[in-house]
Amino acid sequence: MKNKNKNNVAIIIGSDSDLNIAEKSAEVLKKLNINYEIHIISAHRTPERAREFAKSAREKFNIIIAIAGKAAHLAGVLASYTLIPVIGVPVKSDDLGGLDALLSTVQMPSGIPVATVAINGGANAAWLGARILALNDEDLFLKLQDEINLMNKNIIEKDKKLNGQL
Amino acid sequence: MKNKNKNNVAIIIGSDSDLNIAEKSAEVLKKLNINYEIHIISAHRTPERAREFAKSAREKFNIIIAIAGKAAHLAGVLASYTLIPVIGVPVKSDDLGGLDALLSTVQMPSGIPVATVAINGGANAAWLGARILALNDEDLFLKLQDEINLMNKNIIEKDKKLNGQL
Amino acid sequence: MKNKNKNNVAIIIGSDSDLNIAEKSAEVLKKLNINYEIHIISAHRTPERAREFAKSAREKFNIIIAIAGKAAHLAGVLASYTLIPVIGVPVKSDDLGGLDALLSTVQMPSGIPVATVAINGGANAAWLGARILALNDEDLFLKLQDEINLMNKNIIEKDKKLNGQL
Amino acid sequence: MKNKNKNNVAIIIGSDSDLNIAEKSAEVLKKLNINYEIHIISAHRTPERAREFAKSAREKFNIIIAIAGKAAHLAGVLASYTLIPVIGVPVKSDDLGGLDALLSTVQMPSGIPVATVAINGGANAAWLGARILALNDEDLFLKLQDEINLMNKNIIEKDKKLNGQL
Amino acid sequence: MKNKNKNNVAIIIGSDSDLNIAEKSAEVLKKLNINYEIHIISAHRTPERAREFAKSAREKFNIIIAIAGKAAHLAGVLASYTLIPVIGVPVKSDDLGGLDALLSTVQMPSGIPVATVAINGGANAAWLGARILALNDEDLFLKLQDEINLMNKNIIEKDKKLNGQL
Amino acid sequence: MKNKNKNNVAIIIGSDSDLNIAEKSAEVLKKLNINYEIHIISAHRTPERAREFAKSAREKFNIIIAIAGKAAHLAGVLASYTLIPVIGVPVKSDDLGGLDALLSTVQMPSGIPVATVAINGGANAAWLGARILALNDEDLFLKLQDEINLMNKNIIEKDKKLNGQL
Amino acid sequence: MKNKNKNNVAIIIGSDSDLNIAEKSAEVLKKLNINYEIHIISAHRTPERAREFAKSAREKFNIIIAIAGKAAHLAGVLASYTLIPVIGVPVKSDDLGGLDALLSTVQMPSGIPVATVAINGGANAAWLGARILALNDEDLFLKLQDEINLMNKNIIEKDKKLNGQL
Amino acid sequence: MKNKNKNNVAIIIGSDSDLNIAEKSAEVLKKLNINYEIHIISAHRTPERAREFAKSAREKFNIIIAIAGKAAHLAGVLASYTLIPVIGVPVKSDDLGGLDALLSTVQMPSGIPVATVAINGGANAAWLGARILALNDEDLFLKLQDEINLMNKNIIEKDKKLNGQL
Repeated sequence: MKNKNKNNVAIIIGSDSDLNIAEKSAEVLKKLNINYEIHIISAHRTPERAREFAKSAREKFNIIIAIAGKAAHLAGVLASYTLIPVIGVPVKSDDLGGLDALLSTVQMPSGIPVATVAINGGANAAWLGARILALNDEDLFLKLQDEINLMNKNIIEKDKKLNGQL
Repeated sequence: MKNKNKNNVAIIIGSDSDLNIAEKSAEVLKKLNINYEIHIISAHRTPERAREFAKSAREKFNIIIAIAGKAAHLAGVLASYTLIPVIGVPVKSDDLGGLDALLSTVQMPSGIPVATVAINGGANAAWLGARILALNDEDLFLKLQDEINLMNKNIIEKDKKLNGQL
Repeated sequence: MKNKNKNNVAIIIGSDSDLNIAEKSAEVLKKLNINYEIHIISAHRTPERAREFAKSAREKFNIIIAIAGKAAHLAGVLASYTLIPVIGVPVKSDDLGGLDALLSTVQMPSGIPVATVAINGGANAAWLGARILALNDEDLFLKLQDEINLMNKNIIEKDKKLNGQL
Repeated sequence: MKNKNKNNVAIIIGSDSDLNIAEKSAEVLKKLNINYEIHIISAHRTPERAREFAKSAREKFNIIIAIAGKAAHLAGVLASYTLIPVIGVPVKSDDLGGLDALLSTVQMPSGIPVATVAINGGANAAWLGARILALNDEDLFLKLQDEINLMNKNIIEKDKKLNGQL
Repeated sequence: MKNKNKNNVAIIIGSDSDLNIAEKSAEVLKKLNINYEIHIISAHRTPERAREFAKSAREKFNIIIAIAGKAAHLAGVLASYTLIPVIGVPVKSDDLGGLDALLSTVQMPSGIPVATVAINGGANAAWLGARILALNDEDLFLKLQDEINLMNKNIIEKDKKLNGQL
Repeated sequence: MKNKNKNNVAIIIGSDSDLNIAEKSAEVLKKLNINYEIHIISAHRTPERAREFAKSAREKFNIIIAIAGKAAHLAGVLASYTLIPVIGVPVKSDDLGGLDALLSTVQMPSGIPVATVAINGGANAAWLGARILALNDEDLFLKLQDEINLMNKNIIEKDKKLNGQL
Repeated sequence: MKNKNKNNVAIIIGSDSDLNIAEKSAEVLKKLNINYEIHIISAHRTPERAREFAKSAREKFNIIIAIAGKAAHLAGVLASYTLIPVIGVPVKSDDLGGLDALLSTVQMPSGIPVATVAINGGANAAWLGARILALNDEDLFLKLQDEINLMNKNIIEKDKKLNGQL
Repeated sequence: MKNKNKNNVAIIIGSDSDLNIAEKSAEVLKKLNINYEIHIISAHRTPERAREFAKSAREKFNIIIAIAGKAAHLAGVLASYTLIPVIGVPVKSDDLGGLDALLSTVQMPSGIPVATVAINGGANAAWLGARILALNDEDLFLKLQDEINLMNKNIIEKDKKLNGQL
C-alpha cells in the first residue's frame, strides 16, 4: 500500500447539493480517526478533472467514496481510471427515489466494480471503507469493533428503557 | 458544420455483444445514404480511448450513437468530452429488462444531455440522427420523407390485405 | 435548413401546469441567444391544433421541445406530423414520479423517434437543442463551449472554496 | 346511438405484430354475435389515417378497441378525435413486460379517458365492449349472461373433476 | 337498458378517505347532468354489502365507478357480481404511489373486465362513463361535445394569453 | 378450534393453470402428514362459490392457502368472508413477473389480513401453515423440527461434498 | 402449545424509529385482550440478541411480529431460529417507498416462511396474529368476530351519514 | 491483517443452485492467484452455521463474497457477525429479475455495510475483492493492472478487427 500510515479516504460528490450525504460519511470517518478530504468533481461537467483525480488517486488515497444522483456515473468513471476500491453512494432524487442512481452505480460491467451501498448511505460507505482499511490496520479494527459494540449496547439499552428496565 | 458533405455518424458500442443493435442503426443509415462507422469503445474498460475518441469526434463526425447496457455510462461519458449531439441507446439485459440502462442513459445532469431513444432502439437512433442531419441537408430531408411515406404506405397496404382489399 | 438565421426553438407544454419546466428550457436558450416561443398545446385536448402546429412547424422552427406528464403522448404525436427533431421532456407526477411520462416519451416505435431527456429536464432539453443547432452554427458552438467551460470552472471553484483554497 | 342494430366494434392494432391480441378480442366478439372489423393503424406512422378513422368512427362503430405496445399512444390518440368509448389494450414487450404500454395507455389526462384493460388483455377488451353494448341491447345482455354462467359452470366442473367427483 | 331515462351512475368508494376522488367524479357528472349516488362499500370489510349492491346494481344504475387504493379489489369484486360496466379508479398511496392499486384494478382475468383509468383519475372515470352513456343518449353526446370543445377553447385561450395575444 | 384432530388445509387455486403451484403446497403438507384438499375457485368467475366456500370454511378447515396471479383478489376475497388465517401465494405472470399478484395479495386494508408468501411460493405457504398448526399440535411441531433439521443437514452435506469431504 | 393461556405476541422492531408502526400492532392487540411485549432488536446490529431471542421465543410467545425497513432481514432472521409463526411488516422508506422492505421480507426461501402483510401494516399484523391465535381460542374468535362486525357496521353507518340517512 | 500471505477469499452461496455464479468469482480469483474456498451456507436454513462461519471468518479469510437470490439476507447476516468486508452478489430470479435480491443486499442499515455489485456479478465481486486485497499487496496490484490492461487491449483489437484493420 502506498500510504500505509494515512488511511486516507477521498469523498467525492458530483454536485455541492450532495454535501449533506458527504458529511454523513465524514462524521463516521472522524469518529474512527480516519483522514479524509471532500471534493466536488462532476463526471460529466468536469470530466478532465475526474480523470486526473482518479489517475493519481492511489498516490494519496486508499479508498474513494463517490456520491452521485440520477444517471450516477461518478463512481464508475472514477473506477475506470484507478485500481483502488471505489465505494458508490446512490443519491435519492425527488422523482424516482434514487432507483436511477442505484442502478447506474451498481450494474457495472465485469472488471470495473463499484462497491455500492444503500441509497443516501453516506454513513455506510464510511463504515465499509473502515472495514477495508482495518484489514491492514489492527488499531482501526479494534476501534471499529468498539464502535459496533457501542451501537449494539445502545440498542439494548433503548430496549430496556422502552420496557421500563432502565 | 465541420463536415458538411459527410453526414458522418459514429456508432459506438460498449461491447461486441451489442453489435446486433448497432446493425439496426447501420441498416437505417445505409438506406438513407448516411455514412457511418461502428466502433467498440468501453467507457469503463477503455476510458482513455473513449476520451480521445470523443475529444476529436467533431473533426470527423456530426453525431454519435452510443449503445450500451446495464450501468450504461457510455453515452454520458462521450457527451462529457464533446459538444456534438450524442444519441443514447439503452440495451436490454436479461435481469432488469433494460430499465437500468434506460435510467443510466437518460437521467443526465443539466448541461450534458444525451438524446435517449427506446430500449434496443438502434433503428430509431438512426432515424433521430437523420432528422438532425436533415436540418442542414435538403436531399436527406426529402429522402427521409420518402422513407416515412413508404412506411406509411406499407401499413395501409397491410391493412388492406388484412381486410381482403388487395 | 429552412430558417438558417433563426435557430428557432418551439417549446410546447401539454398543460399550463408545466410552465415552470418550460421556463427552465427558456432560461438556457436565452443565455445562448437562441430564439424560442412557448406554446400550450395538448395532444389530447387540442389534437387538431397539435397536428396543424406540427405539420407547419418546419417553416418556422428547427427544433421542438415537447414537455408533458403522465401518459405523455405530446412529443410522439408532434413527431408523427413533422420531420424536424422533437426533444421530449417527461414531467414528474405525484404518483409514479414521472416513470409513466418517461416510458410514454422514450419507448417510441422505429421511424418516429423522440430525443428524450431526464424527468423534468427542461434545461437539458435546451442544451440538447443547442448542440443540434450548433452543428450548423459556429457562433453558437463557441457560445456553447464557453457556457460549458464556465460550468466546469464554477465546479472547480466550489471545490476550492469547500477546501479553503479560495 | 347511431347504429343501434349493428353493435359494431373496431379493433385497431398499431402494428401487424399485434394481430394475435386482436384475434383474442375477435374470438370473444364472434361468440357474442357482435360485428367487428380489424384494422392496422399506427398512431405514429399513419397519423393522418388514425385521425380520419377516429373522426368518422362514430358513423360506423360504437366502440373502439385499440391495441398497442411500448409508448402506446394509439388508444389516447384515437380518443382525442372521437367521443365514442375507446378501450385500450397494452401489449407486452420483451424488455419491460408491458409496463410501458400500460402506463402510456392508462395515465390519460382528464377529459380524454381510455378504458384500459390488462396487459395483452385482448379478450377482456371484448368482454368490456360487450358489457357496454349490452346496456342498450337486452339480447346481448342475455347472451353475455349465458357465457358468464358457462364460464362459471366450467370452473365448477373442473373442480369436481380434480376432486374425482366427475 | 333498464333505466333509459336515468343515466344513473353509482360512485363507490372503499373507504371515506377516498371521498375527495369521488367528488372529482361527481363534479364532472353534475356538469353533464348525469344523476349519481356516492356510497361507501368496502370489498373486504363489508363483503356482503358489496355483493348485494352489485347483484342489484343493474336495476338502478347503468355504470359503476369503483374507487379504491392499495390491494384495490373493489372494482373487480363488483364486476364479478354484475354485468354492467365497472370503471375502476386506482387511488394513490403514500408508499408505492398507487402502482399497487393500478395493478390490482387493471390486471383482471378474462371475462370479468374493469375499465381502468389513471391513478386518482376520478374525473376521467366520469368522462368515460359519459362516453358510454352517450352511446344511447344524443343529448348527452351533444353536451359532452360542448364540454370537450370548451376544454379545447380554454387551452387555446391560455396559449394566446401566454403569448400576449389576449 | 373446530377440528383439532384434522389439521385440514384448503388449497384454493383461481385457475387450473396454477395447479403446479398448488402441488408444491401439497407435497410439503403430505410430508408433514397434514390433510388437505385442492379446489379450483375463482374470486371473479365463481364469486358465489368463493363466498359460500369461505363462509363455511371454518367448519372443515383451519387454514386456507389461496393461489392466484395478476389482479390476485382470491386470498383477499376469501379473507373477507372467514376469520381463519388465509395464506396468499402470488403467481408469477409472463408480463410483470408476479409483481402485480404480489401487490394485489399483500397490500390488504387493516382488519382483513392475508399472510403473503413469496411469488410462486406454494411450498412456503405450506411451511407457514404447518407453523401455525404446530402451535396447537406438539407432534406436528416435532415433525416440523425434524424436517427443518433434515434441510439443514442436507445443506451441510452438500457443502462437504463440494469441498471433497464426503 | 406451550402457553395456551397467554396468547403472547412479541412485537420486534429493528430500530426505535419504527415504534409508531409497533404501536399500531399494539393498539389492535390491546383491543382484543391479547398480551404482547415490544422489543427493539436489530438483526444486523444486535445479531446475537436476535438469535437468543428467537431461539427461546417459543417458551414465552406464540407469535412474533417483526417490523423493519430497507433491507428488512429481521423477520427472516428470526424465522430462521424459531418455528413459531413470524409475521413480517415491511416499513415504508423515503426513497423506494417500502418496496425494498417488502421484497426483503416476503421473498423468503422454501422452509423458512414469513407471513408478510402490507407496507406499514402494523395493525394488520396484529389482526393476522389474532386469526392465528383464535384457531385455538374460542373466546378470542368471538371477540375477533365482534370487532370485524363493528368495523362493518361503522362503514355502513358512514355510508348512511354520507347519504343523509342518519 | 491476520493472514497477510494468504489473500484468502471465502465465496459463500446460499444454495447450490447459485454455484455457477460462484464459479464466475472463482475464475477471476484463480487468474489473479488469489486463494479461495467455496461454501454452501444458507442464512435461513443453516443460521447457526452462518453465524459460526462469520464469527471465525477473520481467522482464515480477508474477504467474504456472499451470493444469494430473492430475499437475499446472506451477505447482511454474515456482515452482522464479522468485521471483514462482505461483498454481496444479488442473484437474478425468474420472477422479479433480481430486483428483490439487489434491494435485499444493498439497502443495509448504517454500521453493517455490504459492498454490493451487479445482479449475477460474480466476476465483479472477485475484481472488487482483488482491488481491496491489492491495497496491501503490490504484486497483486501489478497483476490486477496487467489483467485490466489486457482487457483494454482486447477491446481495442476487437474494434480493429471489426473495422478490417487486423
